[in-house]
Amino acid sequence: MRRWCRTGATLAIGAGLGAAVSRLLSPIGGEEEPDRFGLLSRIPVVPVPSVQASELTVSPGGSGAAMKYGFPSLANIKTRESYVISYDPRTRTASWVIEKLNPASLSGPSDRKCCEFKEDDSVHVFHRSTNQDYKGSGFDRGHLAAAANHKWSQKAMEDTFYLSNIAPQSPHLNQVTWNNLEKLCRSLTKRYLNVYVCSGPLYLPRQEADGKFYVRYQVIGRNHVSVPTHFFKVLILEQMDGRGVELRSYVLPNETTDEKVPLERFLVPIETIERASGLLFVPNIMKRTSSLQAITNK
Amino acid sequence: MRRWCRTGATLAIGAGLGAAVSRLLSPIGGEEEPDRFGLLSRIPVVPVPSVQASELTVSPGGSGAAMKYGFPSLANIKTRESYVISYDPRTRTASWVIEKLNPASLSGPSDRKCCEFKEDDSVHVFHRSTNQDYKGSGFDRGHLAAAANHKWSQKAMEDTFYLSNIAPQSPHLNQVTWNNLEKLCRSLTKRYLNVYVCSGPLYLPRQEADGKFYVRYQVIGRNHVSVPTHFFKVLILEQMDGRGVELRSYVLPNETTDEKVPLERFLVPIETIERASGLLFVPNIMKRTSSLQAITNK
Repeated sequence: MRRWCRTGATLAIGAGLGAAVSRLLSPIGGEEEPDRFGLLSRIPVVPVPSVQASELTVSPGGSGAAMKYGFPSLANIKTRESYVISYDPRTRTASWVIEKLNPASLSGPSDRKCCEFKEDDSVHVFHRSTNQDYKGSGFDRGHLAAAANHKWSQKAMEDTFYLSNIAPQSPHLNQVTWNNLEKLCRSLTKRYLNVYVCSGPLYLPRQEADGKFYVRYQVIGRNHVSVPTHFFKVLILEQMDGRGVELRSYVLPNETTDEKVPLERFLVPIETIERASGLLFVPNIMKRTSSLQAITNK
Repeated sequence: MRRWCRTGATLAIGAGLGAAVSRLLSPIGGEEEPDRFGLLSRIPVVPVPSVQASELTVSPGGSGAAMKYGFPSLANIKTRESYVISYDPRTRTASWVIEKLNPASLSGPSDRKCCEFKEDDSVHVFHRSTNQDYKGSGFDRGHLAAAANHKWSQKAMEDTFYLSNIAPQSPHLNQVTWNNLEKLCRSLTKRYLNVYVCSGPLYLPRQEADGKFYVRYQVIGRNHVSVPTHFFKVLILEQMDGRGVELRSYVLPNETTDEKVPLERFLVPIETIERASGLLFVPNIMKRTSSLQAITNK
């Protein structure tokens, strides 16, 4: 069994096996929250056009509403009809994509057959992936924001086919385990007021024969699109009674996994994802709720 | 000889050998400049506090002035006394650091002996490198903005010792080839009005035995600080007569190189760095000059 590792705690994910999991302890406070301005303090002098430092105003489905619990990072943000994305021009994939799911967003007449994978021409041609990059690579074009989450609008569903919302996924992951996790997200809309889903790639180090740790991942196509070693999904679940928020965070290896392994085996502490991805979730979430409960593998 | 590769063109860097180089052709225009707003168009709705979309106001040496030719990216920008940095919380190193060199910034009473490498506590503790990470790793703490470039101010020199301005470098690279390149930058201040230097890490893919391309790099310490495969320096040279700008862009492998290889052998087309790093230089530079000449390996 191979050993994958992450900074500062133990995340041992074997081929086809779930993750070691622990409880989320002291998510904020003390050293781990360096200042009260959070992420925003990290870009004090960027000369961007003046914008409102408040919630975005968008369509009903809607991408601005998806950001209620904050931005995990502030790099290369793009808003789509029904999701918001932070794009990483070096890897040619997203850093994260956030969607808001509820019964209204999941129902509608939208037809996936009318959708085609398309280049994102808002990304510079040097840093963009193309359909040609995926062709013959052995990897599927895996959705981060899932198409079936956005049936409320044909445009919203079509937007999920931008290649900036796509990453190279092992066919088995894409068609089985990742798909099952997407279905779980949709089914949770029956039990929760809103389901916020943040998905993204990870590039986790692994110990090699020399005892040292290395990150190693394939790149595909002429544009060298990075193939993540893992993917994460962070689910922010609003309780029906409005009293609090539950958090579930998953890490799945980008390879064939045993179908019999239940999804809860892939639950990890949110800190695992925060450390490995360079993103932050908990400080932002805590600005919006005083009751955060992490759902972990029991 | 190992073969390193970059997207869309040939960059063959062998162990200890310089880079294949070609002329910079049509740096802007056509497909390669997707819109006239350049980088700024990539963050249309980021809810940051209102700031001036004009040159920064800073100290004489000074970090705002360093940005005359634009931001290669807009993620996690931090201004220091005498340089500006874009930090990558995933790799725990900078994406780029920009300095402005001229005879005034290079002279002064500052003493390197009074400087100590220090954690950057403006970075979240999850995403920060520490001195302990480097200890016993076999890698030097290599400066991106060089200490000796900021003798004009003790504070400016001390700021270069933030570990956010540091990346793991092969001792030979740090002490010989990278050091020689830093000296070259300083010597060019005698021939040019101002020398703008942008330095950063690269993670270049390499073809392995299976014919596929992989990015592979070590991570060190408890915080898994990424060890770049290569480093770049982009020099923007303002001609004395104010008539135009010259560009020199270097890529050095993060390993022992033959000291006899002249620095000009490491010159590469700027497009090489733009594609591999996810950054953009030329579109921004062209907003500031109508005369850009790329200096390449003859």
